[in-house]
Amino acid sequence: MTIGLLLITHGDTGAHLLATARTMLGVCPLETEALGVAFDCDPDVVEAQARRIAERLGDGGDGLLILTDMYGSTPANIACRLQGRFHARVVAGLNLPMLVRILNYPGLSLEELTEKAVSGGRDGVVVCRKPEGGE
Amino acid sequence: MTIGLLLITHGDTGAHLLATARTMLGVCPLETEALGVAFDCDPDVVEAQARRIAERLGDGGDGLLILTDMYGSTPANIACRLQGRFHARVVAGLNLPMLVRILNYPGLSLEELTEKAVSGGRDGVVVCRKPEGGE
Repeated sequence: MTIGLLLITHGDTGAHLLATARTMLGVCPLETEALGVAFDCDPDVVEAQARRIAERLGDGGDGLLILTDMYGSTPANIACRLQGRFHARVVAGLNLPMLVRILNYPGLSLEELTEKAVSGGRDGVVVCRKPEGGE
Repeated sequence: MTIGLLLITHGDTGAHLLATARTMLGVCPLETEALGVAFDCDPDVVEAQARRIAERLGDGGDGLLILTDMYGSTPANIACRLQGRFHARVVAGLNLPMLVRILNYPGLSLEELTEKAVSGGRDGVVVCRKPEGGE
């Protein structure tokens, strides 16, 4: 399987999360790109940019997984519109555990990877307890 | 209630999410600060920085909610250690929906706000469907 991974977020959040995940894992086993969306952008211009990236990432592959930061916001709406043109799935609520979970399963299909994104993102939201024996 | 909100993440992710949430909402109804942690940092030095920020944010208030990016990583471990010194709760898996949910409920207690963080973070992880009538 050759899934492309595209992050579409407000500002540089996606690029920062991607850099963090790459450093944590030491490798990045999927073709990946981050697109930042400014609040004062023209959504049509950004959508055209996103399409060009999607063509590069998805070219000859087995689909495109698009991660975005918040359902209903401009980056998510742009991501959703790409689903009409590409074999793509979109998952909102991007966090670091979601991204790390995905990069740990580079061999999965698009549907399977979409499920991993959701479970990784949700499972990563936890209340952390005080360390045992801590001050 | 006067809860302080501290974001401790790898690099600038927390600062970027905070800037995004502030712009989306137009206000930031809680005292909030973001602390970035570099991979090559000395954790003791960063913990001392975090303590100083926590003192400022929590001073005279009703507790401190600390959000961090990934359970088990250095920023989360530093956050957890602050629980020994401050009336604080730590939630990992930070994403934009978590932050926006919290900032929508500035009057809640620390326990209630912790629950909102968890529900906001998990509920925000969704698969987005293709728009109706889209291409």
